[in-house]
Amino acid sequence: LNITRIMLARRPVGLPQDDDFRWETVELPPVGDGQVLVDTLYLSVDPYMRDRMSEGPSYAPPQALGIVIAGTVLGRVRESRDSNFQPGELVLGGYGWQTGAVVPAASLRHVDTGPLAPTAALGVLGSTGVTGYLAMVEVGRPKPHDTVVVSAAAGAVGLVAAQTARNLGARVVGIAGSDAKCTYLTQHVGLEGAVNYKASDFTDQLDRACAQGVDVYFDNVGGPVTDAVLDRINRGARIAVCGQISQHAPAVSPPSSHLPVPTILLNHGATMQGFMVMNYASQAAAARATLARWVNDGQLVYTETTAEGFHETVAAFRSLFTGGNIGKQLVKVAD
Amino acid sequence: LNITRIMLARRPVGLPQDDDFRWETVELPPVGDGQVLVDTLYLSVDPYMRDRMSEGPSYAPPQALGIVIAGTVLGRVRESRDSNFQPGELVLGGYGWQTGAVVPAASLRHVDTGPLAPTAALGVLGSTGVTGYLAMVEVGRPKPHDTVVVSAAAGAVGLVAAQTARNLGARVVGIAGSDAKCTYLTQHVGLEGAVNYKASDFTDQLDRACAQGVDVYFDNVGGPVTDAVLDRINRGARIAVCGQISQHAPAVSPPSSHLPVPTILLNHGATMQGFMVMNYASQAAAARATLARWVNDGQLVYTETTAEGFHETVAAFRSLFTGGNIGKQLVKVAD
Repeated sequence: LNITRIMLARRPVGLPQDDDFRWETVELPPVGDGQVLVDTLYLSVDPYMRDRMSEGPSYAPPQALGIVIAGTVLGRVRESRDSNFQPGELVLGGYGWQTGAVVPAASLRHVDTGPLAPTAALGVLGSTGVTGYLAMVEVGRPKPHDTVVVSAAAGAVGLVAAQTARNLGARVVGIAGSDAKCTYLTQHVGLEGAVNYKASDFTDQLDRACAQGVDVYFDNVGGPVTDAVLDRINRGARIAVCGQISQHAPAVSPPSSHLPVPTILLNHGATMQGFMVMNYASQAAAARATLARWVNDGQLVYTETTAEGFHETVAAFRSLFTGGNIGKQLVKVAD
Repeated sequence: LNITRIMLARRPVGLPQDDDFRWETVELPPVGDGQVLVDTLYLSVDPYMRDRMSEGPSYAPPQALGIVIAGTVLGRVRESRDSNFQPGELVLGGYGWQTGAVVPAASLRHVDTGPLAPTAALGVLGSTGVTGYLAMVEVGRPKPHDTVVVSAAAGAVGLVAAQTARNLGARVVGIAGSDAKCTYLTQHVGLEGAVNYKASDFTDQLDRACAQGVDVYFDNVGGPVTDAVLDRINRGARIAVCGQISQHAPAVSPPSSHLPVPTILLNHGATMQGFMVMNYASQAAAARATLARWVNDGQLVYTETTAEGFHETVAAFRSLFTGGNIGKQLVKVAD
């Protein structure tokens, strides 16, 4: 049986290019004792993968060159030599960007999304959702009537973070990169406000949307958007840093003439914390349970953008950095 | 009775200049009911006063132009029309840079420094000491064997912060601006290490002193020193921001080519908090009690640098930004 896989050929500079990746088709080895052959149905493309493609410090160790891009996949068991997995069952694996793989059974998990679609395990009930929820609850700690700003609010993590704050009683203002996304955030998701950071009057819009200042900022982007929000924080503000996607976006930010971040935090007695979901593993199950209940109760809108076909993987990945997706970006590899 | 006082004449740019201040001698009004006439013995000059001399956001509201520079003083009651204060008693006031004042009795506190000199009320048992202690305990939260770095470690707040961490069992490395201060920190104060940030091999020295990375950073300075420490933080590091004195120092920092602070915090799951002592008022009394005990037990070295005479006030204040002082900088106005 042949599969196709995508390897990291060289380290991207800025936006990932096609030549940063190498595609290859290989024959799978036979399934050994304790192993399972999985066909990929959906794979996940996530901003953190871009961070891992660079060397240097990151919240995750760098992805090695010449091997498959790591990541979570939803698959179906084709063949199993382990008693825990039967052919036809849906599983979650960590084997990354390939159309199938032979892996140790211990590296797989059963899929349990209850009434939700199985793909929810890659998004709202996966690390994506748990990050948005726990970073908001544990770092942002919004109180009722606080003004909470979420950047990349129409993205997978941002949508969960924004709705978590809203469900806790806060006034939530989303920041996104198009008027369509802003309309989506206010009309469909039901946020109090949404601001397009590409608008020429972005900071004026932000002032109007945050007339009482900003108590909590959930930062997915960094750069000038974050500078603008930090200009408006209130005393005792909490800032959760979950991503810095602007560092990989095509537009180069102009150098900021801002006060240094430590000075801003001092001026407002504010706290900024880098959020690493792996440090909160003991709380993940409870977070998933709350998120599942909210989705079921209609208190949390969950959206996916799905690219059709494994050949779209790199394009789907790149779209994360150019504003292409609303909600969780998936690649559908097979039915 | 005439007194002399120092007013803010204009807002300093960078290092305060003589012309930023206006001196005047005025006659005091008669002492009214409920008022007290105080002669200044010692006054305190502190970096936060410089922050207040600028407009724009700060952790304290700006000092108005044309009025006396606010600050804490140690004085002696000369005349009282309030039953709580008797002539000859020592008091703490908030009336700032003047040789004496007629003030409401309610604005004064009695001095209670136990076996310590009364000037300790302006330093180790005042906001200075409470800031160093509480920011370290509440934000830094050092564990035994953690590596703790304190910038401006030979300054009033830094000395308290560094010794607090040492007394909690941490390995403490101080950063200071001269070899003499570094020797003082290791030989006299007993810190594990000290690094001179003006040395040409500063970052190499920092690497050697922090071979296990940095778990806690107590930041009094900001700028390139802080950039260097942030390059070395460990996962889960805690950063207490208590001052940004480099912003007022004479040397202009070169623009940093560093990663943005939010990115660094994300990469290491680290937390940075601006510390405002007024937000911890309920813990101040307990902090003072611990500090007094440590000084008495010889577990905390307390040092003052005293300028002689009210006419030295502006020079003493300026010396805070040029590395002139070790420990608490005071001005002795009268015996």
